[in-house]
Amino acid sequence: MRQRNKPWADDFLRENTDLIIPNANEYKNKWKDLFGNDSPIHVEIGTGKGQFIVGMARQYPHINFIGIELSKSVIVTAAQKVQESGLSNIRLIQENAENLLELFMENEVDTIYLNFSDPWPKNRHEKRRLTFRTFLERYEEVLHPSGELIFKTDNRGLFEYSLVSFSEYGLLLKEVSLDLHRDDDPENIMTEYEEKFSAKGQPIYRCKAVFN
Amino acid sequence: MRQRNKPWADDFLRENTDLIIPNANEYKNKWKDLFGNDSPIHVEIGTGKGQFIVGMARQYPHINFIGIELSKSVIVTAAQKVQESGLSNIRLIQENAENLLELFMENEVDTIYLNFSDPWPKNRHEKRRLTFRTFLERYEEVLHPSGELIFKTDNRGLFEYSLVSFSEYGLLLKEVSLDLHRDDDPENIMTEYEEKFSAKGQPIYRCKAVFN
Ligand SMILES: C[S@@+](CC[C@H](N)C(=O)[O-])C[C@H]1O[C@@H](n2cnc3c(N)ncnc32)[C@H](O)[C@@H]1O
Ligand SMILES: C[S@@+](CC[C@H](N)C(=O)[O-])C[C@H]1O[C@@H](n2cnc3c(N)ncnc32)[C@H](O)[C@@H]1O
Repeated sequence: MRQRNKPWADDFLRENTDLIIPNANEYKNKWKDLFGNDSPIHVEIGTGKGQFIVGMARQYPHINFIGIELSKSVIVTAAQKVQESGLSNIRLIQENAENLLELFMENEVDTIYLNFSDPWPKNRHEKRRLTFRTFLERYEEVLHPSGELIFKTDNRGLFEYSLVSFSEYGLLLKEVSLDLHRDDDPENIMTEYEEKFSAKGQPIYRCKAVFN
Repeated sequence: MRQRNKPWADDFLRENTDLIIPNANEYKNKWKDLFGNDSPIHVEIGTGKGQFIVGMARQYPHINFIGIELSKSVIVTAAQKVQESGLSNIRLIQENAENLLELFMENEVDTIYLNFSDPWPKNRHEKRRLTFRTFLERYEEVLHPSGELIFKTDNRGLFEYSLVSFSEYGLLLKEVSLDLHRDDDPENIMTEYEEKFSAKGQPIYRCKAVFN
């Protein structure tokens, strides 16, 4: 995702701590308190500009959504979209997904979404892929045993890699689509990247998996 | 595959018992004796008209290939291709893959190929798919523990189904390609169906899996 220089991003973060949660680790095991209800918690990793999380939160008002996004300037754009939506079941965290265990307690999360994660195509960058083994360990830890990992991408190499990585880790595949938009899933909410790449005619891949 | 009425097929089968092995169950646990050497045994299920098995046998002279094909009229075409090739490391069996356990001993097979298997798209025909659980049980039985199951198809629905079926069965995915011909694998041998469907621009899917 393009990193624009946004000097006002820091100001925005300071002024919107109800939406982009600072020191989010303080809410570990307390996210339901923060939302003020008992709804399931779904986490998107690499939220980008927020179209998916806003669309999902609108579609599923009885689910709480938390978006984790590394980039300051990008998360600010997402936050503005959340504000415009007026939805109260979304929070954002500007953080590296590597630190997931500091943010969530064991079993605290019901679903994890990986959407159009950076592909890191070079072998020597394998460890950075969000479907690399060490990330799967973190997802397993924070996900409820019945919780799902849902992964969408247009990137063929990353999807091929991830299917093998999931299998090696012992994840159980529940569903695979190799051309999501032809399956015509009326509940599918598109991300920014998804719109862009599917407009170019590329198939969108999706799978759902559980940690047994 | 189209079933043409070939009255001479029965004659052909009777006259070519060295190539299309009758009472093949008598060779259970004795296929290496029949080939007269100790080379690994690779089995293709649903051989069709034989282009793949002939191409593979030419490319890998130190592997013995056995093609199993249900249809009499189709296997005769394959047999003619084998005869023209002059290769001695191929045998064919006109049989239903359901009877695999009568044909091979535990661990007797080193690799199984499923190529462009009939998709049986209706849910109620799931049991007929060659990647349905009951078939996987048979493959596991006859495959050597380190042996691979290699599956190619152009059929998206069947491939999606099979990835889930493999995962549920506990198969370990070693490799996935979602557009084999773009990966430009110089060792890939095309089947008749593969040539036909890839010419239409459809991606060819392939995966390799082991029974842990
Ligand atoms: C290719 S973009 C996709 C954005 C969005 N999901 C979409 O589909 O439009 C990947 C996003 O993931 C973020 N990202 C990459 N690695 C991350 C990490 N380790 N933790 C959190 N976010 C990350 C990037 O900053 C970027 O915004
Ligand atoms: C769609 S064709 C593909 C033929 C060839 N593999 C190719 O790729 O060109 C499927 C073939 O599998 C054979 N077949 C289907 N079910 C079978 C079974 N249970 N046992 C053996 N052969 C079978 C059919 O007769 C047919 O020739």
